[in-house]
Amino acid sequence: MDWRVELIGIPGLPEIAAHDRLGTLIGGAIGAAGEQLDAGDIVVISQKVVSKAEGRVRDLALVEPGRRAREVASGLGKDPRLVELILGESRAVVRAERGVLIVETRGGWICANAGIDASNVPGDLSVTLLPEDPDASARRIRVELDAATGVAPAVVIADSFGRPWRLGQTDVAIGCAGLTPLDDRRGRRDRAGRELAVTEIALADQVAAAADLTRTKESGLPACLVRGLERFVSADHGPGARVLRRPEPDDLFR
Amino acid sequence: MDWRVELIGIPGLPEIAAHDRLGTLIGGAIGAAGEQLDAGDIVVISQKVVSKAEGRVRDLALVEPGRRAREVASGLGKDPRLVELILGESRAVVRAERGVLIVETRGGWICANAGIDASNVPGDLSVTLLPEDPDASARRIRVELDAATGVAPAVVIADSFGRPWRLGQTDVAIGCAGLTPLDDRRGRRDRAGRELAVTEIALADQVAAAADLTRTKESGLPACLVRGLERFVSADHGPGARVLRRPEPDDLFR
Repeated sequence: MDWRVELIGIPGLPEIAAHDRLGTLIGGAIGAAGEQLDAGDIVVISQKVVSKAEGRVRDLALVEPGRRAREVASGLGKDPRLVELILGESRAVVRAERGVLIVETRGGWICANAGIDASNVPGDLSVTLLPEDPDASARRIRVELDAATGVAPAVVIADSFGRPWRLGQTDVAIGCAGLTPLDDRRGRRDRAGRELAVTEIALADQVAAAADLTRTKESGLPACLVRGLERFVSADHGPGARVLRRPEPDDLFR
Repeated sequence: MDWRVELIGIPGLPEIAAHDRLGTLIGGAIGAAGEQLDAGDIVVISQKVVSKAEGRVRDLALVEPGRRAREVASGLGKDPRLVELILGESRAVVRAERGVLIVETRGGWICANAGIDASNVPGDLSVTLLPEDPDASARRIRVELDAATGVAPAVVIADSFGRPWRLGQTDVAIGCAGLTPLDDRRGRRDRAGRELAVTEIALADQVAAAADLTRTKESGLPACLVRGLERFVSADHGPGARVLRRPEPDDLFR
């Protein structure tokens, strides 16, 4: 048996604007890149273009920070307008210290700045919020891909999150459709016939991280085709990335 | 430009024992699999076989738990002999509650059980400790690969760690040689010419996570060849995975 996985960055996507049918555009770009989409493929898409297609872009110049946002911002040295947006996207603040604002988003993800990307360039005040329901975004893009190409690959929506204890960001799945998010390896045995201690693998997160390997400093390709994991791809949309959220009672780090 | 990365699980490694020259064995398995090793390749190896080759296997039946281990074990419902080994491998306990023991290892990694793998099968009492210095292990295996094949690919030693906030484990790099561990994307600009907010990507961790995609319930292949990332592979061994450890003063979750 040959265990081989291929990661293919998809070039040629246009700049994405609100109301674009992202699945249709990505299906076209995959074809234009000379690739034939297969139902066992996984299409990994950067959060940023999904947010743009869904109109989740805000202009900081139009944000009026409230009192709480001004207080939090002042303690952290952040832009109070950005903090206003972050708090509006959050249901709890996990940490607010040393210039870092880590929250639980309304969707249940724990990350810095509620996943809001701000440009570093002075004068540019547009920011993108996370999609409101990234699993629903993934399902919709999957249906669009099916309509455009006749094939419904799995879809993952990926974003770069930092982690406690380790430097650097890694891409994780914030939404998915048609992919098994957690690979249950309980019952797998090693050569000696012993059950392996590892129980569950965050498959969708590993797929997101792998797809980011096709990006470079020069090319921020927002879509990647992942081939060779058809055993994790299903015809039904499946439970989505939401099952990757660790329930609060099990979490020692909130 | 074509952004394509290939992940190839390497079959055919024998059961590994203490004093095996892992690099030589893996070089042979790569050749036997019909692959020609290239200096731009990355070889990702599971911690478990590295530990076995380094004799980092212990028999719980021979461990005499001390008083502290017995206390901690009793609070957590763990085997006191396993806790004795965990504490011996640790320089600090980060959390010990709800059956979970998260420590900072002597090498500076924060993970459950100091990375010690225990079998789940009653009666089997052998466990593997992490390599003492996984960056040194990666360098040594790289030199062995070079001696065996005439080519020195980058080497990553990977282990499965859990994370706060998210369910499931992902593979991360605990050692590496010849690979840029952190990809500095500062200065990268998007289509609009704006600098991207993401600054550093934990490249070695993403490579480890990608390599795990070639493993399945049925085949726990301990080595994977990663092709297409030669831009991150260097002739010198580089700083190692130790630069991925977040310094304690920057860490909000200890």
